[in-house]
Amino acid sequence: MDRLIEAIEHAQNPSVVGLDPTPALVPPQVVSAFADEVRESIEDTSELYAAQLAVAYFEFNRAIIDAVADIVPAVKPQIAMYEAIGPAGVDAYTMTCEYAQQQGLYVLGDIKRGDIGSTAAAYAGHLSGVTDLAGDGEPAAYDPWHEDAVTVNPYLGTDGITPFVAAAAAADKDIFALVRTSNPSSKEIQELELADGSRLYEHVADLVEGWGSETIGAHGYSRVGAVVGATHPQEGAELRRRMPHTFFLVPGYGAQGGTAAGVAGMFDADGSGAIVNSSRGIIGAWKKTGDYREDMDAETALDLVASAARKAAEDMRDDLRVAVYR
Amino acid sequence: MDRLIEAIEHAQNPSVVGLDPTPALVPPQVVSAFADEVRESIEDTSELYAAQLAVAYFEFNRAIIDAVADIVPAVKPQIAMYEAIGPAGVDAYTMTCEYAQQQGLYVLGDIKRGDIGSTAAAYAGHLSGVTDLAGDGEPAAYDPWHEDAVTVNPYLGTDGITPFVAAAAAADKDIFALVRTSNPSSKEIQELELADGSRLYEHVADLVEGWGSETIGAHGYSRVGAVVGATHPQEGAELRRRMPHTFFLVPGYGAQGGTAAGVAGMFDADGSGAIVNSSRGIIGAWKKTGDYREDMDAETALDLVASAARKAAEDMRDDLRVAVYR
Repeated sequence: MDRLIEAIEHAQNPSVVGLDPTPALVPPQVVSAFADEVRESIEDTSELYAAQLAVAYFEFNRAIIDAVADIVPAVKPQIAMYEAIGPAGVDAYTMTCEYAQQQGLYVLGDIKRGDIGSTAAAYAGHLSGVTDLAGDGEPAAYDPWHEDAVTVNPYLGTDGITPFVAAAAAADKDIFALVRTSNPSSKEIQELELADGSRLYEHVADLVEGWGSETIGAHGYSRVGAVVGATHPQEGAELRRRMPHTFFLVPGYGAQGGTAAGVAGMFDADGSGAIVNSSRGIIGAWKKTGDYREDMDAETALDLVASAARKAAEDMRDDLRVAVYR
Repeated sequence: MDRLIEAIEHAQNPSVVGLDPTPALVPPQVVSAFADEVRESIEDTSELYAAQLAVAYFEFNRAIIDAVADIVPAVKPQIAMYEAIGPAGVDAYTMTCEYAQQQGLYVLGDIKRGDIGSTAAAYAGHLSGVTDLAGDGEPAAYDPWHEDAVTVNPYLGTDGITPFVAAAAAADKDIFALVRTSNPSSKEIQELELADGSRLYEHVADLVEGWGSETIGAHGYSRVGAVVGATHPQEGAELRRRMPHTFFLVPGYGAQGGTAAGVAGMFDADGSGAIVNSSRGIIGAWKKTGDYREDMDAETALDLVASAARKAAEDMRDDLRVAVYR
């Protein structure tokens, strides 16, 4: 986790921009602008609009990355948004990850993967910087996903996580396991009271702290982080004390109701220990400027997306600085 | 779930072939055979071997699908194995799904996705047969993943599942939620004793039965199935009684230790209610024949893969018939 922590310190900004495009978040003239370009390369017309969207998603992300790369330490593309449009979307996802890395950003792939042992090892390929794909004892550089960290689901238990930890350690990368998610229904399972009086998410928290125990870095945090929703301020503060070597990824800020004051307790006494994600609040900020016009050309619309995203990212940074760097 | 149940009845075979290729399961001459073909289309030589593997995985799967399509009702490609080699692998995954559907097979995509509401809705795009991607009120046929069902992870709760159920109902497809997985570490979380004396997996089982309650089909099972490992025969039999409208996907047969007698209790009194997966036992059967030679050409090696897979699938079918169709 040292690379992420140092990037946060450098920017004095514990926030990450969620790159979660949807058809409604990308200005329509940007999507239209690529109609001719993709029409030539698509055989099946049913795939035309998806191919346009895939190109538009990448251009939209690139505009935002260029606008925020000097003020935020990291981006978090949510792969679901890309899978929604099929394999063409997956290509837009990896292109986005690669471009963000090239601009010096730490890329947190929100993929929430999880499976049993041998299958988890296959998913851990997301983190392989160097792989012996051929099994001939001669590993070669191959990093097709371009992620610095990924999110994982803990429901399968330790043997579903160990392969990710091993891959992360080998490639100087990290993982974040779901502990307490930001959504309303998360209470149905995560808050269940166990026979010993604790809650399920507390039990998972203890497992997560243990999964990281062999990989604690120079800044005191392990390679196994935890996802703790901004919508649970008190639980988040308790988990901060319960998991002293576990870095937190905090989603649910802004659109879902989390506030800077609410997440302050998820940071440690030095103002480290967590990074807060905002997606729609930043990438959709252009919709609230009042400056958008339907007759703008694509380039002008992307300029608006970029300037609004930068302003929203600065506002979030400043709010977090006040709340966290006490 | 009616389409799957009718396919099982037609084949008189409640088994599904797991299409989980790895570099070790594909004969090396098959991988080599595509070196020249892919070299022309690859710019980055570090991607060459992955591209070869992707083509080889598809050809390997095609040989197996052709060999078993008339005796099994379904296949279950595990997307982790394809993601392990990057986006090229994802293309091999969707090509495999499409080819299997073309041969009349029900395709169960083992993707174990799960996220919060709006993100789960994006993942549910895996099941969209018809989508209004453009948001213009004019849905068009677009099904890039070619899956008839997908597996999902329940840790996020109801709002992470509802979008999948809606997509499944709209497209006459199904989902299977993890309840009790086959791996050793599954007990760390899934077997936890709750304050009311039940186990966590039993609580999840009740949620799953509820998630399906509005989608019960002609054969008495809903569109929301459950994943219950073959390695837990007694718990599986108890879950069968606890979840009367929930169809089971049973992994862990063969290589992981599950037996036909052990899974018999996961079926209902009519011999329906479950489908049992075997992956390595079928797709890797060629390695145990004693007939493989290193100097075989690729075509001969694929013939061996196919004939061994068919024999193993027949053996599994016959074992299950004896145990299940009492």
